Amino acid sequence: MSHHPEARPSHGPDAMAGVEFLGFDVFGTVVDWRSGVARAAAPFLDRHRIAVDPLAFADEWRALYQPSMEEVRSGRRPWVRLDILNLENLRVVLTRHGVAIDGIAAEDLAALNRCWERLDPWPDSVEGLTRLKRRFAIGALSNGHLAGMMRLARFGGLHWDIIVGAEVARSYKPRPETYLRSAEAVGLPPAQVGMIAAHNEDLRAARALGLRTVFVRRPTEHGPAQTTDLAPTEHWDVEADSLIAAADALGC
Amino acid sequence: MSHHPEARPSHGPDAMAGVEFLGFDVFGTVVDWRSGVARAAAPFLDRHRIAVDPLAFADEWRALYQPSMEEVRSGRRPWVRLDILNLENLRVVLTRHGVAIDGIAAEDLAALNRCWERLDPWPDSVEGLTRLKRRFAIGALSNGHLAGMMRLARFGGLHWDIIVGAEVARSYKPRPETYLRSAEAVGLPPAQVGMIAAHNEDLRAARALGLRTVFVRRPTEHGPAQTTDLAPTEHWDVEADSLIAAADALGC
Repeated sequence: MSHHPEARPSHGPDAMAGVEFLGFDVFGTVVDWRSGVARAAAPFLDRHRIAVDPLAFADEWRALYQPSMEEVRSGRRPWVRLDILNLENLRVVLTRHGVAIDGIAAEDLAALNRCWERLDPWPDSVEGLTRLKRRFAIGALSNGHLAGMMRLARFGGLHWDIIVGAEVARSYKPRPETYLRSAEAVGLPPAQVGMIAAHNEDLRAARALGLRTVFVRRPTEHGPAQTTDLAPTEHWDVEADSLIAAADALGC
Repeated sequence: MSHHPEARPSHGPDAMAGVEFLGFDVFGTVVDWRSGVARAAAPFLDRHRIAVDPLAFADEWRALYQPSMEEVRSGRRPWVRLDILNLENLRVVLTRHGVAIDGIAAEDLAALNRCWERLDPWPDSVEGLTRLKRRFAIGALSNGHLAGMMRLARFGGLHWDIIVGAEVARSYKPRPETYLRSAEAVGLPPAQVGMIAAHNEDLRAARALGLRTVFVRRPTEHGPAQTTDLAPTEHWDVEADSLIAAADALGC
């Protein structure tokens, strides 16, 4: 269903005619990173007597995600996996809160950093993916690294057929190479690949390269006061309120 | 169970202590390529009036597999995916049988080449993998390309957590890079990765790099007259007659 002011109805099952593979954004689209990061951070913050709300801590950590990837996208920094960026960003956030970072064991930081591999799927995700998988090959097409995506899938029961995305392409979305190399890896031209995301920017980049697009509204990804990506900014090929609704729309 | 003349009994469930990921050889170990290739070749050979037994044709095609990869392993040829090598080899075999290859439509050849994506699992494979997946993350660690491995998994119901191997590493087994890059992709040191294969050479290369080893006997991979890999040539960490037996041995 569309929330764009000039929305036309989403297409029926033919909206993805010819598409053989659906690539999924994961953080925010398939899993709820905010509550999962906060859940893992809470005992850590408590143990180290860091006076910050766990949800606010999750937001602060996540706020460094795009700028750190931008260093790689821009070419200012060579390719580096997301878990390494996340760990660097964790140290930055802790330091900002006055924590003497060298007083925390490296393994303690690493353990908290692995919270990105233990995030709950949104309530509709597992059923939606399972249904979409009947018709399409499905895969993570995320900025996450391969090992993290693998562990996250096992944690949440996400039955990907394959994991592609940033590490396979050595390039972060929305750089074109990430989508193009992922399409190549699944053996398909871009027109036979659908990108599913809760983020308009991700879909815009995918569409510019010829991929089909599915927008899934995740209005609380950033919490109850979220202001971004509440509605489609273009008429995407499919627009849905959940992955189950996307499966409905595609006749899966 | 071991068939080595000086075999010691296979270890119990502790044989893979510390291992978190099992990487599987696929062609021959998990799926029966010979009967699947012959099944797809039969109507093609018939249609083009090529007088060769389909099983013999499968053997001839497969006989070019190692030499063609060797060109890449040796560095004489830059990295190229297995589907491309298979297609080249198909043309060679047909030409040897006097076929005027230019008289066959490219799409007809491409369709036959895709038989490598529609091979039946051995009867024990799906149950064995499903049980092993309870304890370990599991993935294809094959010389096959990503798209082919994805389609083969969907065809046969092989529920990999991830696909790694040659294309991720841009290197063919038994080159060290294939194993090492695959271990890196799943975020583990080699000692926490197990290699499962029906081929002693594959396991020998894996062990030399510190991976754990599981030998699965597939005495009819090459047909009833098979002479190779009928028995372990070293004491592998686990030796089994099927993937179900491997799951039994590992307490899965």
